[in-house]
Amino acid sequence: MEFDKVVEEVLKRVKPSERERKEVNEISVFILDILKKLVKKHELEEKVRVEIEGSFAKDTWLSEDVDLDIFLLFNISFPLDLLRKYGLMLGEELAEKLGVNPVRRYASHPYIELNYGKVKIDIVPAYDVPSSKDVRTPVDRTPFHTRYIRNVISKRPELKDEIRLLKRFTKGIGIYGAEIKTEGFSGYLIEILVTYYGSFKDTVVAASTWKPWRTVIDLEGYYENKEIDVFKMFRAPLIVIDPIDEKRNAASAVSLEKLSLFVLACKEFLKTPSISFFYPHSPSIDVEKIKRELYEQNVIAIKTLIPSLPEDVLWGQVKRSLQGITDLLHRYGFRVFDTSAWTKGNILVMLFKLKYLERSKIEEHKGPPIYLDNSLTFISLNEKRSDVISGPYVKGDRLVVLRRVKYSKAEDVIKEKLNEAKLGKLISKYLKENIDVLKGANIVDISPEKEYLQYLYRWLTRRLPWRSH
Amino acid sequence: MEFDKVVEEVLKRVKPSERERKEVNEISVFILDILKKLVKKHELEEKVRVEIEGSFAKDTWLSEDVDLDIFLLFNISFPLDLLRKYGLMLGEELAEKLGVNPVRRYASHPYIELNYGKVKIDIVPAYDVPSSKDVRTPVDRTPFHTRYIRNVISKRPELKDEIRLLKRFTKGIGIYGAEIKTEGFSGYLIEILVTYYGSFKDTVVAASTWKPWRTVIDLEGYYENKEIDVFKMFRAPLIVIDPIDEKRNAASAVSLEKLSLFVLACKEFLKTPSISFFYPHSPSIDVEKIKRELYEQNVIAIKTLIPSLPEDVLWGQVKRSLQGITDLLHRYGFRVFDTSAWTKGNILVMLFKLKYLERSKIEEHKGPPIYLDNSLTFISLNEKRSDVISGPYVKGDRLVVLRRVKYSKAEDVIKEKLNEAKLGKLISKYLKENIDVLKGANIVDISPEKEYLQYLYRWLTRRLPWRSH
Repeated sequence: MEFDKVVEEVLKRVKPSERERKEVNEISVFILDILKKLVKKHELEEKVRVEIEGSFAKDTWLSEDVDLDIFLLFNISFPLDLLRKYGLMLGEELAEKLGVNPVRRYASHPYIELNYGKVKIDIVPAYDVPSSKDVRTPVDRTPFHTRYIRNVISKRPELKDEIRLLKRFTKGIGIYGAEIKTEGFSGYLIEILVTYYGSFKDTVVAASTWKPWRTVIDLEGYYENKEIDVFKMFRAPLIVIDPIDEKRNAASAVSLEKLSLFVLACKEFLKTPSISFFYPHSPSIDVEKIKRELYEQNVIAIKTLIPSLPEDVLWGQVKRSLQGITDLLHRYGFRVFDTSAWTKGNILVMLFKLKYLERSKIEEHKGPPIYLDNSLTFISLNEKRSDVISGPYVKGDRLVVLRRVKYSKAEDVIKEKLNEAKLGKLISKYLKENIDVLKGANIVDISPEKEYLQYLYRWLTRRLPWRSH
Repeated sequence: MEFDKVVEEVLKRVKPSERERKEVNEISVFILDILKKLVKKHELEEKVRVEIEGSFAKDTWLSEDVDLDIFLLFNISFPLDLLRKYGLMLGEELAEKLGVNPVRRYASHPYIELNYGKVKIDIVPAYDVPSSKDVRTPVDRTPFHTRYIRNVISKRPELKDEIRLLKRFTKGIGIYGAEIKTEGFSGYLIEILVTYYGSFKDTVVAASTWKPWRTVIDLEGYYENKEIDVFKMFRAPLIVIDPIDEKRNAASAVSLEKLSLFVLACKEFLKTPSISFFYPHSPSIDVEKIKRELYEQNVIAIKTLIPSLPEDVLWGQVKRSLQGITDLLHRYGFRVFDTSAWTKGNILVMLFKLKYLERSKIEEHKGPPIYLDNSLTFISLNEKRSDVISGPYVKGDRLVVLRRVKYSKAEDVIKEKLNEAKLGKLISKYLKENIDVLKGANIVDISPEKEYLQYLYRWLTRRLPWRSH
């Protein structure tokens, strides 16, 4: 398929219809109205403005995929603890009025998420600061982002569809979202990119030649000398100067891997455009294949119960733990090819693909070169050790011994040495006190959910999203 | 035990008694007499001088351990092929007269070895050149070495016992002999060292601080600037300028490992002097332990028949083959800790201690960084491969795949891929056509000889000789 055909196809699907537009608009007016009444009820009219932010406010939202971000903008005289308290309260009261369930979420501070029909609504308290220089909490910046992009779009309305295309593209290849779990591209970042390059296509063409750590986008031209000034200020795989704050990298959440995946997808898409970049196929799951691969790819799993934590906090903890356990295994001579984690409710599963589930029972331990004084000490120390099975002897100009290894099974290292690993503090107690360590086909049985099997299947086959069939 | 006590003890054993001296002297006179008569018989009196060289001529031989080196020194007008022919003939006729078996040996050219009572006799043909600058074949240098050391010793007779001590010391720690199998210290090299340092003790003290690749001994002071001139001329772990030929390193045969062993032994001996450096204990052999260790240390053996070859040629071939097979195993992902070989008659056994007999069945194969143009090629190539079990996917800024490995057992690599290994040419046919590959306890059954079991036991425990009990 050619590029323009694909884009045309995708646009048909991502662009909201007049009917959907009207529907969501009615909902937003309805919600705003309730919220304003609640504000009045608590006699906060002087202190709080209610405002819609985000993709709906900017008209860059995707059909069938609407988030309403409603901000409660508090006067700066309002104390932070009260802002938090009232923010949650107003959100919860709104949910009650709507007859839906409020979920507490956490970004820089707590907020309420609720699902109303097919619309996900976030009620976020923030400070109503006079300028973007005065932000007190990170979310205070959002209204300025909204205003900046609205302003751009009011002059160049053709950008809206281009933004929709890039959003869908990043969703399709699995890099949409700045949260810690994803480490990808925020909606705002996508809007800046499209604004900078002018269109979806120009963004893709440009991004296909990006180099990690060497790419800087400075829409407002804050920095005169890219090399000297920007690289002194920022160190990240991708640097996109926030148009409303020249000291902020709007792409700081983007990991090297997700950036690389984006660059690669852009290259491939230009070469062979296809709908599957925007809407990848869900692979059909073959449980027997999953079982075989779990065995063949030397997968080991840790299952544990975890406390209820805000999403970003949880994933911070999980990623730290994955790295800590990888390092631990490495110290004990195990090579880890890949890690992953899945959580649902209070269950956490951490997965490790290893080179070996059982490593060599012996290792070569190198001593000092013979011409150093401590060579004699090495001999006398190692001669007495019961784990030395050969040597000390001379190899080249060094002393060496062959030693018996204490832990030759990865599961034993995890079971017995987890206390030596650096783990996420908030979940380390759970990991140290009660874990199940599973191998091979048993890992399938952890959860019967289709979502879990899909996750497993994807991780085991690990194809590029647009190429998975 | 203190240093001087040990030396005194050793001297008692290495210094020939008057009776032994007389005995060997009578034998040498007797042999010389026969050889001279044979020379006469063949009407070669004008062409050949018979002369005793080596440790007996220099009176640096060890009690119970005599080699008689008898040289047939041919006039330089004599053609080389005839020199070889007559050299062998005279040696074989001597053996016949003595009623013993002649063995053909090979150094720079063929010679005859025979055992007469407890004395080993070498009959070596060489050219009688006017000066050490005129040598035609390497052995022609020997008479000049003999003369040089005899001359030194005639002025400093006290050196003889000191040389005996160092010879015994190097024999005890297993580094005596310049042949390829040993890659150690020749008798002549030992004589130069003791002459240079003045005594056994001073040699040991000096050698204990030697650094491989940085040690130069220039007895005759041929080189003014060690760093510049010598290191330009020679590159070897130990450099000892031959006093009769400034262009020759008399220590060129010494390997890094044997030099290091010497330095280490000197350090240890100075710290804790003991007879065991000169006369190490023969460990008592425990066949059950050997079997266990063969298994525990992941030993794999190649047994083959080999042609009859001169010792140095054979060991050159064996060492090349050990290295070639080690490299082969490495290319297929196997780590080799240590190798060794044993030959007797026409049997060759090559041994390998491996980290794994069976390696991981999967490996990570890294592709190009995503920003390089060939990244798309990597994807399409690897997507089609049936050995790819996961990926291509992005890891950091690179593409990777997990692949199934074709050969996961070391024995399969040896059996099926030996043709890819660099082997000693003269034995490669034998290795490629008919080998037995053995693992674990089966390796014990290759030969019932005590010598073989002793060899196995030593290699498996691999203690420093003076510390093996």
